[in-house]
Amino acid sequence: MSFNTFGKIFRFTTWGESHGPAIGCVVDGCPPNIALSEKDIMKDMDRRRPGKSKFTSQRKESDKVKILSGVFKGKTTGTPISMIIYNEDAKSRDYETIKNKFRPGHADYTYFLKYGIRDYRGGGRQSARETAARVAAGAIARVVLNKLIGKKLKVVGGVTQLGILGCNKKNWNEKEIRKNAFFCPDKKSIKLWEKYLLTIRKNGSSCGAIIELRASGIPVGLGAPIYSKLDADLANALMSINAVKGINIGAGMNAAFMSGEENSDEMKSILGKTKQCWRDIRRNIFRSRNCSFFLC
Amino acid sequence: MSFNTFGKIFRFTTWGESHGPAIGCVVDGCPPNIALSEKDIMKDMDRRRPGKSKFTSQRKESDKVKILSGVFKGKTTGTPISMIIYNEDAKSRDYETIKNKFRPGHADYTYFLKYGIRDYRGGGRQSARETAARVAAGAIARVVLNKLIGKKLKVVGGVTQLGILGCNKKNWNEKEIRKNAFFCPDKKSIKLWEKYLLTIRKNGSSCGAIIELRASGIPVGLGAPIYSKLDADLANALMSINAVKGINIGAGMNAAFMSGEENSDEMKSILGKTKQCWRDIRRNIFRSRNCSFFLC
Amino acid sequence: MSFNTFGKIFRFTTWGESHGPAIGCVVDGCPPNIALSEKDIMKDMDRRRPGKSKFTSQRKESDKVKILSGVFKGKTTGTPISMIIYNEDAKSRDYETIKNKFRPGHADYTYFLKYGIRDYRGGGRQSARETAARVAAGAIARVVLNKLIGKKLKVVGGVTQLGILGCNKKNWNEKEIRKNAFFCPDKKSIKLWEKYLLTIRKNGSSCGAIIELRASGIPVGLGAPIYSKLDADLANALMSINAVKGINIGAGMNAAFMSGEENSDEMKSILGKTKQCWRDIRRNIFRSRNCSFFLC
Amino acid sequence: MSFNTFGKIFRFTTWGESHGPAIGCVVDGCPPNIALSEKDIMKDMDRRRPGKSKFTSQRKESDKVKILSGVFKGKTTGTPISMIIYNEDAKSRDYETIKNKFRPGHADYTYFLKYGIRDYRGGGRQSARETAARVAAGAIARVVLNKLIGKKLKVVGGVTQLGILGCNKKNWNEKEIRKNAFFCPDKKSIKLWEKYLLTIRKNGSSCGAIIELRASGIPVGLGAPIYSKLDADLANALMSINAVKGINIGAGMNAAFMSGEENSDEMKSILGKTKQCWRDIRRNIFRSRNCSFFLC
Repeated sequence: MSFNTFGKIFRFTTWGESHGPAIGCVVDGCPPNIALSEKDIMKDMDRRRPGKSKFTSQRKESDKVKILSGVFKGKTTGTPISMIIYNEDAKSRDYETIKNKFRPGHADYTYFLKYGIRDYRGGGRQSARETAARVAAGAIARVVLNKLIGKKLKVVGGVTQLGILGCNKKNWNEKEIRKNAFFCPDKKSIKLWEKYLLTIRKNGSSCGAIIELRASGIPVGLGAPIYSKLDADLANALMSINAVKGINIGAGMNAAFMSGEENSDEMKSILGKTKQCWRDIRRNIFRSRNCSFFLC
Repeated sequence: MSFNTFGKIFRFTTWGESHGPAIGCVVDGCPPNIALSEKDIMKDMDRRRPGKSKFTSQRKESDKVKILSGVFKGKTTGTPISMIIYNEDAKSRDYETIKNKFRPGHADYTYFLKYGIRDYRGGGRQSARETAARVAAGAIARVVLNKLIGKKLKVVGGVTQLGILGCNKKNWNEKEIRKNAFFCPDKKSIKLWEKYLLTIRKNGSSCGAIIELRASGIPVGLGAPIYSKLDADLANALMSINAVKGINIGAGMNAAFMSGEENSDEMKSILGKTKQCWRDIRRNIFRSRNCSFFLC
Repeated sequence: MSFNTFGKIFRFTTWGESHGPAIGCVVDGCPPNIALSEKDIMKDMDRRRPGKSKFTSQRKESDKVKILSGVFKGKTTGTPISMIIYNEDAKSRDYETIKNKFRPGHADYTYFLKYGIRDYRGGGRQSARETAARVAAGAIARVVLNKLIGKKLKVVGGVTQLGILGCNKKNWNEKEIRKNAFFCPDKKSIKLWEKYLLTIRKNGSSCGAIIELRASGIPVGLGAPIYSKLDADLANALMSINAVKGINIGAGMNAAFMSGEENSDEMKSILGKTKQCWRDIRRNIFRSRNCSFFLC
Repeated sequence: MSFNTFGKIFRFTTWGESHGPAIGCVVDGCPPNIALSEKDIMKDMDRRRPGKSKFTSQRKESDKVKILSGVFKGKTTGTPISMIIYNEDAKSRDYETIKNKFRPGHADYTYFLKYGIRDYRGGGRQSARETAARVAAGAIARVVLNKLIGKKLKVVGGVTQLGILGCNKKNWNEKEIRKNAFFCPDKKSIKLWEKYLLTIRKNGSSCGAIIELRASGIPVGLGAPIYSKLDADLANALMSINAVKGINIGAGMNAAFMSGEENSDEMKSILGKTKQCWRDIRRNIFRSRNCSFFLC
């Protein structure tokens, strides 16, 4: 029993292997009448695209997304949006030498035992190339959310730890993330990171990293009460990405060391004057409820 | 849109509020012809039961599970197993004082905004009491796995960090976990933990904790390749428990600080002589495949 | 792999055997803040209840539904609504004689081959008693729809064919259906039906029947475009009821014999003046879209 | 909320519009290690292909299926199989004239009200062209079943009623179905059908039809007990095809007119000598159970 679909109301199915002819994605449940073009999707694809610097995958892919369905005259129709990305730099030959070897830290052995068959070309389905397909789906989600909730909703990610080197989060600068090869939000850390990574590469080694995601403008009440609560859905999604082995939400594991007072997450009114508070909450219910019913 | 169901082939739906008449669980997809009694379930329920020491919830509940369907003459029939646990110590009055207050660190406010209604009695559905229902489902899962895979499959959890106090994991003793009030695997840490927690209580404070789960004898190939891979399913399940905010699998977040060599997870043959290796792997495929197709 | 759940946004899971201690139902996804009591549910349960006349099942059940969760102070909270119905007239002894016999026209043999176990007491899970649980879920759906869409939405069913005897559908009288033991909408057919069925019973035989369902006031756009289109969902639901072997929607199988013109289903404006038509359609979109997104 | 996915363990998602660049299908859950080529799929595609006679759609499509993933060196890998079929004869211009008209008997109006947008080119997503994608999925299912269950499993369909003309089912000849333009199993009816349909066409009219499906060699126990029982899954699938408005399983609606004795579906032993019967049933359990657990 295979599960290549993620999401509930807005959900997508990804397919494709690292070195097959193409990879792709079918988004089902996208609302109708939303302006959408391949250009909207390429914004996010270009940020993920390999081969842009010597610090990321050297594979050369233009990662052009072609929309095959679900959009008519520049607008979504509410029907499934199928997207295809052709693999251009797929040289299966490169993998002939590992044809009979199981790589450590990869799912080679597990796939082989589970399915009794091995697609040795770059890991086949287990390749991180699969994430290109979900970036395409995510790009559509971003367009939908911008339309439905507005630009105040913002989700940004940056690399805040590279091996043993951290960065100064007080210098977090969103624009900086898009400028450097490390997706680092702190301009002052970049030179050191570069030197560090070049040394590691020269030694034929590698290192881990930590990514920090910051979301703001999120409507209250997203997610279901227990089994698909927001934390659980996020953990589920992130853990399904190759190489992700740990997730902290808010204080995360550090909450263990905190006292109840330190970790109390006191509520602050963002609604202005106290008198209006309840009326505003009431109003907010209806605004956010429509939203959450649609999105949840 | 509510999601109170978890799991795929073996899946359960929980229901009930902290201070309603009862809570319960419906398990769907349990294989037929497996010996099952309420006693089997009570083993796990008793370990979770509140009111056993001054260090856990003071609520007095016998947490007796009654099986209402799916079992005939001591064996599962393959049809849904419905279980009910009556709430005995539900005093709604205790909560009258917080009727109009949103507690920090709880989902009071979120539920209210999302649903426009408040069940203030102990948090209603958001209470950790919900976990009793999933312990009942888990107890059945344990019986099924013992029957299908054998006793070599073992999943054990212990508390390894209590606030600022750790324990010596080299002293990990499974039996010890069941003996002390802290579920701590290290006998030597208990006295200190007790003293520490009593002080914290006296000060009207509280602290966090870390739980470590150890699983062994797991068949290779559980889970789907990407979106329901084992790590993702575990993260999803654990994050849905109240108060869980971080998850590490294996080295977890610490992998960020490791080099590729340190984190390489080298494969070791557990199959004995090299010559037999491939034949054994082949054999293993069929053994584990049947299993994983059934369980995945 | 068992599937005891039906529905998407509003969905329910039924459990229980004909002669176990109880049967029941968990409704997940019911909107919050809707007035709901056990009395609302009993209206529909009483119509289904066996033992009311000599023409239905002779089993004596009061079929009292008890709500165990999801309702607080008379209103739904948006959390799962668990309902239980105790079996009162379950005499397993009555079935000892068929313990080793597979009844024709029943699922005895199939269950036995599939699960390798037999619950011979009244068919166990395969008993039509399961439908009591879904009547309870349906009663809640009716309350929700009355609240959300209004009383103009109406779904009524009547028996229009009893063995070889039809009725005159021109005499369709909704109130009549609730009055007679045959749920027949045509008062003039009842006497003949009664005589016919008594003869059949005397001969130790039985006969089939056709039920006609009439729905009006349905919002446009319910259902998904293809795989969960309204027709498909209805067929799915109805075919899952014991003994149902055929379904016609509209003209049904008779459409085969019709020409394109006869079967063209010409559209009639129900929107009044032509001039207003388009504006009204536009308006209607938003009205019905909210609705259909919620219900779909 | 859109649902373009069908099936459980073996499930597929279809996408694409009648006059978009392509249509396609992603099959998830196909077992690994099964020989599969595009040629296997074309066998079924060619039978569905339009433009083969003057009695079917005049649209010219070669309907070549291209497999984009999930197959490596001629065998399935257990990962999603993505298939694409390019639309070659899509002339959107042809539909400009109906741009502002809602056709009777089509979903034009419903789609417009539900989604607030109209893809007028041949019905867009609502076109029967979508069934080409599911024929591709079905072709894979057929290959899998042939491998897992063997050639004794057979599912054949033929047209047995064309408007007011039936055929003689006693002449049912499977090979004949593949030979004539009407998929009629009775050679003797074809001439009359042809004459009849030509007259209808000349008058600018059309007619309905009945298709009969015959399945044999089916393992006992397919499907779930109640909500996804075989009858319900079949009704669900068939009703989702455009223009299908009625379904009879076995005697279907005619069962209404039969007595209990006539409709009793008496069991016949296919297991040979009575003595061996129980042992054989027992054996059969394990055989069929493996199978049904896998397929169900």
